[in-house]
Order: sequence, then structure tokens, then C-alpha cells
Amino acid sequence: MAVYTDLTDDELATLLSAYDLGPALAFKGIAEGVENSNFLLETPAGRFILTVYEKRVATTDLPFFMGIMEALAAAGVVAPAPVRRRDGEILSSARGKACAIITFLRGVSPRRPNAAQCRALGEVLAAMHVALASYPAARPNSLGPAAWGPLIRPNLALAESLRPGLAAAIEADLAALDLAQAEGWRAALPQGVIHADLFPDNTLFLGDALAGVIDFYFACTDALAYDLAVCLNAWCFEPDRSFNITKAMAMVQGYERVRPLTAPERAALPSLARGAALRFFATRLADWSTTPEGAMVKRKDPLEYADKLEFHRRAKGPEDYGA
Amino acid sequence: MAVYTDLTDDELATLLSAYDLGPALAFKGIAEGVENSNFLLETPAGRFILTVYEKRVATTDLPFFMGIMEALAAAGVVAPAPVRRRDGEILSSARGKACAIITFLRGVSPRRPNAAQCRALGEVLAAMHVALASYPAARPNSLGPAAWGPLIRPNLALAESLRPGLAAAIEADLAALDLAQAEGWRAALPQGVIHADLFPDNTLFLGDALAGVIDFYFACTDALAYDLAVCLNAWCFEPDRSFNITKAMAMVQGYERVRPLTAPERAALPSLARGAALRFFATRLADWSTTPEGAMVKRKDPLEYADKLEFHRRAKGPEDYGA
Repeated sequence: MAVYTDLTDDELATLLSAYDLGPALAFKGIAEGVENSNFLLETPAGRFILTVYEKRVATTDLPFFMGIMEALAAAGVVAPAPVRRRDGEILSSARGKACAIITFLRGVSPRRPNAAQCRALGEVLAAMHVALASYPAARPNSLGPAAWGPLIRPNLALAESLRPGLAAAIEADLAALDLAQAEGWRAALPQGVIHADLFPDNTLFLGDALAGVIDFYFACTDALAYDLAVCLNAWCFEPDRSFNITKAMAMVQGYERVRPLTAPERAALPSLARGAALRFFATRLADWSTTPEGAMVKRKDPLEYADKLEFHRRAKGPEDYGA
Repeated sequence: MAVYTDLTDDELATLLSAYDLGPALAFKGIAEGVENSNFLLETPAGRFILTVYEKRVATTDLPFFMGIMEALAAAGVVAPAPVRRRDGEILSSARGKACAIITFLRGVSPRRPNAAQCRALGEVLAAMHVALASYPAARPNSLGPAAWGPLIRPNLALAESLRPGLAAAIEADLAALDLAQAEGWRAALPQGVIHADLFPDNTLFLGDALAGVIDFYFACTDALAYDLAVCLNAWCFEPDRSFNITKAMAMVQGYERVRPLTAPERAALPSLARGAALRFFATRLADWSTTPEGAMVKRKDPLEYADKLEFHRRAKGPEDYGA
């Protein structure tokens, strides 16, 4: 949550001269996203978000992400629409960094989503999957199952120091998912473009209505049901880390109202949920090991996902996830 | 430039229930101000800034600051207006911290103000001084001349390490201003409420028109002409640290169009400008000594003000400042 690149009024005016938006009427750095610099921009044409892409986003991936937003907005899904320059391009450059302007969406991110919001999230997630079914580009999931072991294993001693016994439990998770992987669990599932990071802070609500989905910078091609599994992890656990089955049922029902799960997807849900928890455990553990205390980027607690993994280890079937 | 306190949607809803503003339509942490947490808030009633006051602002001073904004907005000076709660209060509380909602002002902060913007700043600065002439409350300037020596002297070795010879030069500045102080230079000048920190990043412009003055959290009672001296330091030096007399003349002329300087004020301008430079040198030097490299708060270079002090030492009279 920080502005890394600060544009001057002159740099902004130069940037805006490539667009048909008019001059800046307001321009404020906002604390949104940890990987890029974001600014709220107002012009006579309306309100926008200007994003300057910092080094952690590969600029070669940007056309994939921007195309997704454009396709979703065109399909009426509540995603920000990229604004094209007069020369037709979406990407600009400022201070030697890639940047883009997208439309501003109203709404407030829920800290603790209720069941109605989980249902709305499920509906919009499925609508995204349907709208992107014919999306022409693909991008591998660089944080898919193959990445979990290499991310986690060098930090198992750290995991053990955070909670005695955790290293062995995580090894068992990795082994179980390796086995499932050997059985081809993911490849057999319908694939497509997924958001892959649809946490509540990447959504904007007006009351219980989902008014915006943002931050598509982890989007990739993977099993559609894995996206739902990420959301079950991110939305349906309570602050005490218990699983709220009412919220999960609402989310799955919302999803299936738009796109019914296939039988293999339903059967895979426990493994997908366990895998999704392992994926966020993996990156949080790696970040924990490399981010100094008190650094600008706030570290997220890997043990939150260790607790979620405990639930997933005990889950017996899709019915434990409301499916 | 950071959000220190992050309010949840529930905390925000509770806070808003005390106001007649309706529910939140948008809520984003913004990178504005280094001492408080600021949020852009939109409701059906319009756009606002919600500020949560962190520990560096004494809450006992808040009524003084909020009253200034209210008086200025009522007088038609371009300051944000505090929004009163239904119970008539301006200050609220969230997470045990004081907070307030003020109106949002459009505009962009100039990085390198031009002469027309300096003129506009001078006019509005004088209009603020006039509008606050009968302001009923007073607050001593805790960063006035009496504070400069105690802030600087413990860090003179650091100053010398930043630039050999600087310690002796700063001692001479302190001695010169002690002498001026003994001669009663400041007490003889018209006193009133001053902004005391009116840097370009505390202003919002639409083109060359000044559309907003913000951040009154250093406001205090002091010599009015000292406020102008702060602005001459903050607005009229170029990036190469040369003094731009054209911008200074524009600012002084703008000021005098609304409130002519008295003869003692004009005569005191070189000492006031030197003193203002010493004040910012003092706090930057102290911050430099206490802020670790790479901390969340960006350190500002004390040598910028050491360079400005060199100019002030050579100044012969008010004409060197365009007066």
C-alpha cells in the first residue's frame, strides 16, 4: 500500500496529452495495490485510475491483463475499462515505466463479507469465466502447483519455527497434491482465464451489490474451479479462522446460477481448495522470509493459511464446501 | 505519504451514521500528508476527505485547526470546510483516534510553480490573513525562533558531516537571528493566524488558479509576514536552488494587492526569510538524524535549506525578495 512512483504535474500533463480526456482536475496517489503505483485521476471526461507499473509486473504480460479488463467491461461484467489513447494504444509510458488509465469504479471493499456478498461474488466470478470463454490469449499460472514445492521447501524450517509440527503437515499437503496431480486432477477440469487473486480487497461493493472487480495482475489460464477455490479460501473463513459453510453455499450457489460446475469440478473442489490454500501459504511464507520487519510492504501472516489448510485436510467431499 | 490507520467498511459505516452524508459510495486511502491517515470518501452528498489523526497531532489543537478551515471556507477562501455531525460536533472518533470529515477540493499540486501561480498564492495568503484577523483563538508557534537553536545544536556534528563548514555557518545564522530577536524584530510586526507550512504540495491548482489550500496542522499565531517568508522559501527557489526573483516579485505583488505590507514588515523580510529557512533546516536536520534510511517516511534533504540559507545570508534588503 504505497505510491512508489510520484508523477509531477508536468509529467501528468504530458501523459494526458496522448488521450482525449482533457486536463487533470484532481490527481491523488491512492493506497491500493502493493505492486504498482495507483493514482485517482479526474478530468472533464470523468474519473479514472492511473496505474504506473513497477518492476514486479512483467510488461510483456500487460496486454494480457488489459485485454481481460477490456473484454469484461465490454461484456457488461463490472471490471474497469482501459482507456485507449488517441493512437489506439492502451499502454503509455511515464518516467520510463509502463502505465495505463482505466475507468474508476465506485464501491467499498468489504472487510468481512456477508453471505449475500459471497453469493454476488460467486455470480460475478462465473460471469467472468463465461465472458472470457473465447478470450484469444493464454498465460500460464506461474503460481500453479509446480511452484508450490519450490516456494515452500526452502522455508520449511521457518514454517516449523512459526509453529512446531507445521513442516511435516505441509510436506503431507504437498505429497497429497503431488499424488492428485499425478492423477491428472487439474488437467481434466474445464480451463479458461481466471482472476486467481479475487480477495475481498479486490472487489468494490455498494451494499450487497458487487460493483467492481479490480486488480487482474495475477490473471492466468488455469482450471476455472480453482478460481472458485481461491475465493472459498479468501471469503468464507471467519476472523477466528473457522469456515462459514453458509457463506460457502451462497458463493457456490451464486456461481452455479450462472455456470453450473461439472461433476469432475465438484469432485475436485476439496483438492482445489487445499491447493489454493497452499498457494497463498507458499507466497506468504516466502514473503515472510524475505521482508524485513517494519518494511514499507506489510507482511501477511502465513499462519492464517496454515489454519485454513487444517480445515481442508479434514474435508471429506464437496459438500464440506457447500457444493 | 502513507495510510497508517486502515478503517474497515463496518467502522466507516458506524462513523458515517453520525453524519447526514448517507452511505459510502467509494472509500480509498490516499497518499497525502505524512502525519495523518487520509481517505477519499464519496457519498450521495458529494466527495470528502476523511482524516484520522495519528499521534503526532495533538488532539487538543484540533479545534484550533478545524476552526480555521471553517472560518476560511465561510469567508470564501479556498479551504476545505469541516463537515459537522448531526450533533453539531466536528470531531469524531474511530479506532480510538480522533477523526474529521472535510470537503474535497479539486486541483493538482504544482511541482514547480510558475510566476502566475506564485502571484495567485500571494493573493490567497493575504486573503487568509485578512479573513482570520478576528479569529478568536490563538496557538503559539512551537517551531518559532526559540525552537531553532535547541533543534539544531544537538545535530551540528551531523550538519558538519553533511557539508564541511556548515556548522559554523549555521551558528552564525542562529547568532544573527538571536540578535534580531533581541531587537524585537518579530514582536513589532503585525501578528495573526498563519498557515506556517504553505508549500506547493499543500495547494491545489486548476491551471494557474489556486483552487485549494490544505493541511492547516502547523497553523499558529505568529508574524503574518513570516508566513510570506515561508512561502518565498518554498515557492521561489528553482530546482538548481537559485532564487527566482520574478516569482518572488509576483508573490509579493499578489500579497500586497490584498494586504499591503507595513514598513517594518518590509524591512524585516530578509531576517524573516533567513529565519524561515532555518526553521525548515532545523526540522529536516532533526528528522535526518532520527529517521533510518529506507523507513516509511521519506526524509527530506536538509542541504536544500542550507543552500537557501546561503542566499539569505547575502541578501541586502527587501528588494532582494521582490518587495
